[in-house]
Amino acid sequence: MIELYHCADARSFRALWALEELKLPYKLHLLPFPPRIREPSYLDANPLGTIPLLIDGDTRLTESAAIVQYLSVKYGPTLLAVAPEEPSYGEWLNWLHFGEATLTFPQTLVLRYRMLEPPERRLPQAADDYAQWFHSRLRHVERALADREWLVAQRFTMADISVGYALLLAKSVKIDNGFPPAVASYWVRLKEREGFARAKAAQKPN
Amino acid sequence: MIELYHCADARSFRALWALEELKLPYKLHLLPFPPRIREPSYLDANPLGTIPLLIDGDTRLTESAAIVQYLSVKYGPTLLAVAPEEPSYGEWLNWLHFGEATLTFPQTLVLRYRMLEPPERRLPQAADDYAQWFHSRLRHVERALADREWLVAQRFTMADISVGYALLLAKSVKIDNGFPPAVASYWVRLKEREGFARAKAAQKPN
Repeated sequence: MIELYHCADARSFRALWALEELKLPYKLHLLPFPPRIREPSYLDANPLGTIPLLIDGDTRLTESAAIVQYLSVKYGPTLLAVAPEEPSYGEWLNWLHFGEATLTFPQTLVLRYRMLEPPERRLPQAADDYAQWFHSRLRHVERALADREWLVAQRFTMADISVGYALLLAKSVKIDNGFPPAVASYWVRLKEREGFARAKAAQKPN
Repeated sequence: MIELYHCADARSFRALWALEELKLPYKLHLLPFPPRIREPSYLDANPLGTIPLLIDGDTRLTESAAIVQYLSVKYGPTLLAVAPEEPSYGEWLNWLHFGEATLTFPQTLVLRYRMLEPPERRLPQAADDYAQWFHSRLRHVERALADREWLVAQRFTMADISVGYALLLAKSVKIDNGFPPAVASYWVRLKEREGFARAKAAQKPN
């Protein structure tokens, strides 16, 4: 059975959400954040110490945006994936990467230098620089959503999970500033997904 | 014909290298770095202002790691892609993302706060924090290469272009510190690829 190492609302939420959308059985290991400090035995499972870790037989994945693509292709066919034969295949791949590499990483700077570091190591300038970066890149999502409900292929796909998680993080880091209008309605649609609700419920400690 | 907007040795080098490995015809637009400042008309082509932009008919891609996957799947079958039926498909996707999201982004912080910002906006602490981050993640590449020549599937693939570019950047940002031994020999193998040499030649201004 698929195993997922996860911290509540961390990047691994992408994997959890994808598993719930696909209705796949899985075993969840819920860890305190950050695991490399609060649960050092995790380093035996994942020497990187990062979250997520997904294990599926001999396959081990640590990149959340790779995981959602992997699951949808490996456990498809499903409309959550866009097939190479579809006209928006390239665009789909682009959004999968954009959600993490362009929309999530700047937020981790804000989180680190505004909230996680001890006061003497905080860097307001770096936090502000990357909050601004996030907002400038978010305008690209706003433009894309001007004429559509979901990012690609006129349906909800794993690309929406990749970008949707960046929006969830922006809410928790409190750099959403009130999303621009198309992003704001998109965020409402994302939260209304049954798979999103099930993933949120699954990460609640018993 | 495929069009690529590129700055010498920027992330778009991944796309250029992939095009050369696949021996595809393309039209190269060579821009000064950073294009959003030094060639503002580029914003008409790509409102994000980022590099790369690859245009293939109606498909437009801006994420370099997505581009290398896209090209190998769209213009395959080729051994540069790992097919979903192969046992290392998941691992391949993971390295494609890891090269950018985990190994490249920390370097952009070093570049920005140690070299690109004007002196009064430099942040040695942030640059040092992310140089350290890069080296800790690079150990993961060193472990992976202990028993193999290429990252996955016992052959050179697009995953090696994704990670290989991060090594090229580390050399130019000068945070390589002398790569650890397995990474150092891997870097030599990468540079010896004919596709790498052709990409380097293609980006030389006439």
